[in-house]
Parts: sequence; C-alpha cells; structure tokens
Amino acid sequence: MTADLIGRLRQVVGPHGVIGDRDGMAGYLTDWRNAYRGTAAAVVRPGDTDEVARVVALCHGAGVAVVPQGGNTGLCGGAVPDSSGRQVVLSLTRLRRIRDLDLANQTITVEAGTVLRTVQEAAAAAGQLFPLSLGAEGSCTIGGNLATNAGGTAVLRYGTMRDLTLGLEVVLPDGRIWHGLRGLRKDNTGYDLKQLFIGAEGTLGVITAAVLKLFPAVRSRATAWLALPSPQAAVDLIGVLRDLAGDRLTGFEVMSRQSVEFVLRHATGARDPFDERHPWYALVELCDSLPLAGLDAVLESALGEAFERDLVVDAVVAASPAQATALWALREGISEAQNHEGPSLKHDVTVPVSRIAAFVAGTDRALSEALPGIRIVTYGHVGDGNLHYNLSKPVGGDDAEFRVRAADLARVIYDSTYGFGGSISAEHGIGQSKRESLADYKDSLDLQLMRGLKQVFDPHGLMNPGKILPG
Amino acid sequence: MTADLIGRLRQVVGPHGVIGDRDGMAGYLTDWRNAYRGTAAAVVRPGDTDEVARVVALCHGAGVAVVPQGGNTGLCGGAVPDSSGRQVVLSLTRLRRIRDLDLANQTITVEAGTVLRTVQEAAAAAGQLFPLSLGAEGSCTIGGNLATNAGGTAVLRYGTMRDLTLGLEVVLPDGRIWHGLRGLRKDNTGYDLKQLFIGAEGTLGVITAAVLKLFPAVRSRATAWLALPSPQAAVDLIGVLRDLAGDRLTGFEVMSRQSVEFVLRHATGARDPFDERHPWYALVELCDSLPLAGLDAVLESALGEAFERDLVVDAVVAASPAQATALWALREGISEAQNHEGPSLKHDVTVPVSRIAAFVAGTDRALSEALPGIRIVTYGHVGDGNLHYNLSKPVGGDDAEFRVRAADLARVIYDSTYGFGGSISAEHGIGQSKRESLADYKDSLDLQLMRGLKQVFDPHGLMNPGKILPG
Repeated sequence: MTADLIGRLRQVVGPHGVIGDRDGMAGYLTDWRNAYRGTAAAVVRPGDTDEVARVVALCHGAGVAVVPQGGNTGLCGGAVPDSSGRQVVLSLTRLRRIRDLDLANQTITVEAGTVLRTVQEAAAAAGQLFPLSLGAEGSCTIGGNLATNAGGTAVLRYGTMRDLTLGLEVVLPDGRIWHGLRGLRKDNTGYDLKQLFIGAEGTLGVITAAVLKLFPAVRSRATAWLALPSPQAAVDLIGVLRDLAGDRLTGFEVMSRQSVEFVLRHATGARDPFDERHPWYALVELCDSLPLAGLDAVLESALGEAFERDLVVDAVVAASPAQATALWALREGISEAQNHEGPSLKHDVTVPVSRIAAFVAGTDRALSEALPGIRIVTYGHVGDGNLHYNLSKPVGGDDAEFRVRAADLARVIYDSTYGFGGSISAEHGIGQSKRESLADYKDSLDLQLMRGLKQVFDPHGLMNPGKILPG
Repeated sequence: MTADLIGRLRQVVGPHGVIGDRDGMAGYLTDWRNAYRGTAAAVVRPGDTDEVARVVALCHGAGVAVVPQGGNTGLCGGAVPDSSGRQVVLSLTRLRRIRDLDLANQTITVEAGTVLRTVQEAAAAAGQLFPLSLGAEGSCTIGGNLATNAGGTAVLRYGTMRDLTLGLEVVLPDGRIWHGLRGLRKDNTGYDLKQLFIGAEGTLGVITAAVLKLFPAVRSRATAWLALPSPQAAVDLIGVLRDLAGDRLTGFEVMSRQSVEFVLRHATGARDPFDERHPWYALVELCDSLPLAGLDAVLESALGEAFERDLVVDAVVAASPAQATALWALREGISEAQNHEGPSLKHDVTVPVSRIAAFVAGTDRALSEALPGIRIVTYGHVGDGNLHYNLSKPVGGDDAEFRVRAADLARVIYDSTYGFGGSISAEHGIGQSKRESLADYKDSLDLQLMRGLKQVFDPHGLMNPGKILPG
C-alpha cells in the first residue's frame, strides 16, 4: 500500500518531488542539532498549495501520517518523524513565493517555505520592516515561525509571530484548503480560527501561506551595553526605559556573567567592553523610524536616571553601527560558545517580568543544590520575561554523567517556573522534547480541551502525531 | 423546575443577586438602543468568579441556557436573551475588582464587569496607558470588550482587544473554571485557548477576568483636521504619515462630507473648521510618551509633503487640548447626529486599506442605484480599513419605507465588502443581527469548524445560544 501511495504522490508532485532513498532523505529525518532522528516512508516536496492539498488528501486516504517540515531549525523535534518508517515528511521549502506586497495595506503575503531573511529583505527593499528576528533567520521558514509562534529579539516592541499575522492559508488534515488568507486588521465574524493554527506545530493542519504585517523601516538606532548589579536592576531598568524612551525601546536582552564569559573565551574577536567583571549585563536598543530622532539624547537621559538609581554600574554606548554589531555579537554568540564547554542543557521559560529576580535567585539556588558546581548560562529577552536557562556541567565534570541528569535538572527549572506562574516553553514550542512535561505542568482541563480541538481538526490523528499532546 | 433552579441560584448569590420581577429585569432584557428585546426566567448577578461558576453549573445541570451580559452596550443583540422566557441572563457587572496592577510587568488584572473607563483611569493613575478607547467607554465592560474583540480609535497603533490581552479566566459552559489568568508575554505550550474566547461573544464560556497590557502614558499629542479630495487621498496620506511619523501615528479617522454635515446641523456648538465644503475629511492624531517630542514639527513636515502631493486641500492643527477635543467632537458626534435624520441603518465593515477607494466608489454607486437619494454616512477608522457605512433615508423619505429596505441595503454593502475581500463585521461582532448573514458570507468550511469548536466547549448548546452561529 505504501508503494501504491508513493506512486500516486509522484503523480502529484512529479518524480523529483518525492524522495525515497536513504541518502536523499537523511537531511529531513533529523533536526539540525542531530538531537532527534526518525525514519520515513518518503519525503514529499510539493510545489504549491494545490499540490500540498492533494498530497495530504492522498495520505489521509491511505491512513498515513504527515509530518510538516520547514527549515528544520526547531529545537524541540517538532518537525522530525518518528521511527516507524511509515510517516511521510512533507517539506514546504518549495513553497517560497512572495505572493504580494501591499504597501498601502502594510502587508506582505508569503508562502510557508519562504526563509525569514527573504521576507525581511523583501520588506526592506520596499522601505518597510518585517520585525521578526531570531538566530536561525537565515534558514528558518515562515511556516515554522508560524507553527511555533516564534519570538526572538524584537518581541518587546512588535510582539510574537502571532501578533504579526493577519491571515493564513491552511491545508487541513483531510486535504481541504482553509482559506483565511485575508489582510484585514479587524474581522469579528466568529471564532478566530487562524489563532489555533499559530503555535500548533503542524498538529492541526499545514500552513501554506500567510499575510504578515509590515512596519515603518527603522532609520535610527541607539545601542548600549550595560553592567548591572542584579536581575532586579534589569527589571527596574526596563521601567526607566519605558518611562523615558516609550515605544523607542525595541530590545532589552540580559546576560549573566557566566554567559558572557563563555563568549569571551570561545568566540573569535570577542572582547569585554569593560575592564572589570560584573554579575549581569544588559543590551539595550532604541529604534525610531525617523532618521534624526535624537535617540542618543533619549538614551543618555535614561542612563543618567539609571546610574542615579544604581541600576547601572557601567555603560558603553555604541558609537557606530559596527560597534553595535560587536555588542550584539556578545549576546548572539552565547549559544554557540556554550557548546565548547560540553553538553548544553537548554531551557526556554517565561515568568512575569516582575518576578524575574525572585525566579532567578530561587532557580539558581535549587540548581546549585541539585548539582554543586553546575554552570548556569542565563540569558534572554527579559523585556518579555523570557529566559534561556541553559546549563553546562561543572568544571572537570563528565559529559555522560551530566547528560544523565538532563531530566531531573529540567524538572528543577520547570518546577520553579511553574511556581512563579510561568511557562515551560516561551518561544521554542513543545514538539517531542517537552511533550511529556506538558502533562505535569498544564492543567488537565487544558489538555482535555486541547484534545477536543485536535479531534475537531484531525479526528484520525494523522497530522504530526506524537507532537505537543502528551501520550 | 425553573422555580427550583431559581431557589438554588438565590442560595448561591443571595436574595439580591437574583432578579425575577418584570420591572427589575427590564433593563437587562433589551439593548441600550432598544433594537432587541427578550424575556428571561431570571437575571442573576453573581459577585465573584466562584459564584459565576456555581450559577453556570446549576443552569447547566438544569438544562437552562445562560446569556452573559456586561454593560449591555452592544450593537448586535449579542447580550439580549431570546423570547422564550426560559433563559437566564448572567450579569457580570458585580465582578468589578481590579485584582492587580503590576507596573514591572506592565499589566493590569481586572474582572469582567469593570467598566472600560475605570480601567483607563486606573492605568492613568499609575502613570500608564490602557489604550482601548471607544464611544461606549463610560459604560461598556471589559468582559464585553473581550467577548466582541472591541476595536475603537487606537487600533492603528495598539491593536484590538485581542492584542491587548495576555490572560483570561473563564467559566466554561458546564461550570468548570478555566485558569488562564497569566501575565506572560510569551507562552508556547500548545493551542492558545484564550484566543477562542476572545470574540466568541459568550458562546464558548463566560469570561470572568483578564490580564491586560499597559503601555507608557501619552505625554504629548498633535491633532489635525484635514480636508481631502477623495478616499484614495486618505489611503495615500496614511502612507505619508507612516513614513514621516512612524509609530507616532495613533489615530486616523476619515469622514464623508455627509457625516460631518449631520454633526454641524445637529450637534450643539459644532462648527466647520473650514469656510469651504470638502468631500472628505480626516482627523489625524500623533502621540508620544515623551513630553517634548517635537510632534508639531513632525506633523508639519508630513502635512507639507501631503499638500505637495495634493493629498490634502486644507488643514487645521489644534493649538490647544480644547481645540483637539472640539475636532474629535466632530468625529464622535456622527452617530448621535445621524439619529436626527430618521432611522440609521448601521454597518461596520473592513476591507484591506489598499482597496478602500475602489470599495467606497463601488458601494456608493450600488447604494444609490438601489435607493436613489439615499444619504450615505461613511466614516471610520480608515487606518484599519474599517468603515462604518451607515445609511439615512432620502430627504423627505418615509421612515417605515426606509426601514423595510434594511435587509436589501445591507446586502448591497455586504456583497460589495465580500467582493473586496473584506469582513461584514469589523468590530461590533455578529450577535443576533448578522447571524444569518454569516451563512452567506462565511465559507461553509469555516462554519463547520466553528460548529465543531462550539461542540467541544458547549456540547449541550446552553451558552448564549442563538448568537453568532447561523441556525
């Protein structure tokens, strides 16, 4: 039956649209970190929405599960098939047309396989901004950004992918096309169905295209690297910046000394902007669409107030775009630098901004009790309450011994997150990796309602099964 | 059985919490415009979420339908019970506590019955802004704002109620409490259930509280009243303002001459800012959180560009807050002024901003063909593509004859809206009034999925039945 299905799929997408050999499939069967591996009956690469619909309908008819995949840059295994060898990987990367750019409506309509950077560049070429920005932007796709409700470094000002989306086109699990590709800023005609597909990680249908919001381009920018005494100072500093810079505050990243130390040790050309060591750092960015917006003066007055209130101990303001890039490199190099220190146990949590300081204190204490000497690489988008709480083994520790502790150290972080009213997945999603944790940290009522919704869209459980919902 | 139920309800909410007499119930059984009337077995006024849950559970157990109601300011009959006399109206107006105001998290947690203006004032008292603003703000409640995903005059910059909401607490149709009252800016742990309750007009559950976003207070403002040659000039002008003022553009309202003429004729003290008549007007507002933000210079440069490109024919810039208020009164007086000209047939539609001009031309033509001499009162939030396309009878026409045409004139507008890829309800919702129209203008697949969702949350159809979903 599988052979018959594959023959029919070939008829839909052409001979080159179906990959069935081991070598050709390899890149689609594991994630980029090689943390999850699966097998598949085939990898199918349709060229447009109609082909996606026909492929999904054929799989549905044959009772074969479909695993949608974009740029395959996820961190939770959400786009990797299981090990049965019976699933079909549906790669969206051939759907990469920019269908429309409507300046008057401030929208861009793109297909799911379009790379994020391509969308940023298309917007910029039209003098506009598409603000979503994250580490994988050179290879992640819009479909994956939507499926995981991606966040990144500009959420503070522009929101997550959900906030940037006006309309969607979706192929439902039975192959029908849901036409929600509208560029309306207001539409109150019943339940907002598109919201369900955003963040559903491909478990309710395959997103094939989206209408996204554009914003005025950024024409001036001020960037500062600050030394802070504590996480509470970071929280208070956000208040000062909001008060004195308002909407101009677009970025607020915080890093522990441990995080920065790894970058200074391993990243080529990285150097500490300060002579002395400080326990915490913040990277602050103000932006404006006006070319002469006086941002330096705004930043200076905010920093003056911050120094006066002892929220900031030292500061460097970028004097050029190159200096700003160098400061951002200290932030963006953390994840890679940490890999040089042995296995990285990564966590991506949010708590209310007001609880950050107590949360960090409590979590660090609990982690150090659980594994004395553990190195805690805390950094992230504190303006959104979002911390990447990553862990490295104690100096001289054994890799394998550390890896064995992964589940119980995650539990320490998640218990603390839960206790502070937070979320165990801020922006990476659930995928396979946190699926069973969801059973521990979501109310059973939430899970029951989620299962009910899954049943409405995918009664046969054929769309990305084994992801999000606990078994 | 009803008597027994009412006795039990009295036990839950106390003797004063249940209103059963005709006079006491009267205000709850019709909307403020007196356009919809119903009857009810009782009006129940619980005092907190727990009481709401117990009331809903009792009604559920007795198979009695519940109609949630907030400030009863809706325009579509969504909060009015049917005529059976067997439904229970659940008034949320006693749930009006502000539970929390978290400055560091920039959130306010309020109960559903809190009046919108109370929330605005609480935010302002803390030096913050809660930006939702609309005509009924002195009496509408947060629960109703959420149930209809309210819009208003600041959507251009701050979004709709959906965009302003981080968390919800909801009593489900069977009386269980769904605890989603979190103040997290990022949370990707499965399907975003709260999105379903927002805009569901009480058909999936009763919203009892919400965590809402706060923004930096506005400390400077520039307001201008402009004469425009055409709707296309309005659309192009938005582009100029976005380009030269960026985020500072918070309001962009457009009014036809007919709309303004009614205000000048009927509103006390209203006067035309210009000596000559112009076919279209725009009210533009720039805002900033900085006290000395140079908004006048920004506005001046934008208007200079607009005059040069013939987008603006004449302009008045408010020289004082009082003048700004007077200009806004011209916009805000339209709805009331129109009532002096006989029955108002109101419509609330959106199209993509880029299609506004063609949409207005085509719709006006079709309306004038359908009823020669009809007076078209077009105005609204053009920055969001949202027009209130209201109609008055021809001069000297008969009220009753005009009212009879309501359905077919609505169809003219909705057909045109649909043809331009728009929505027949931008910000007022569906309620009873547009319920059957939804069957004509929504894909059957949308309706099927919506019915599936309704079934998950409310399998017995007891929560605000007869609203939104066509029969």
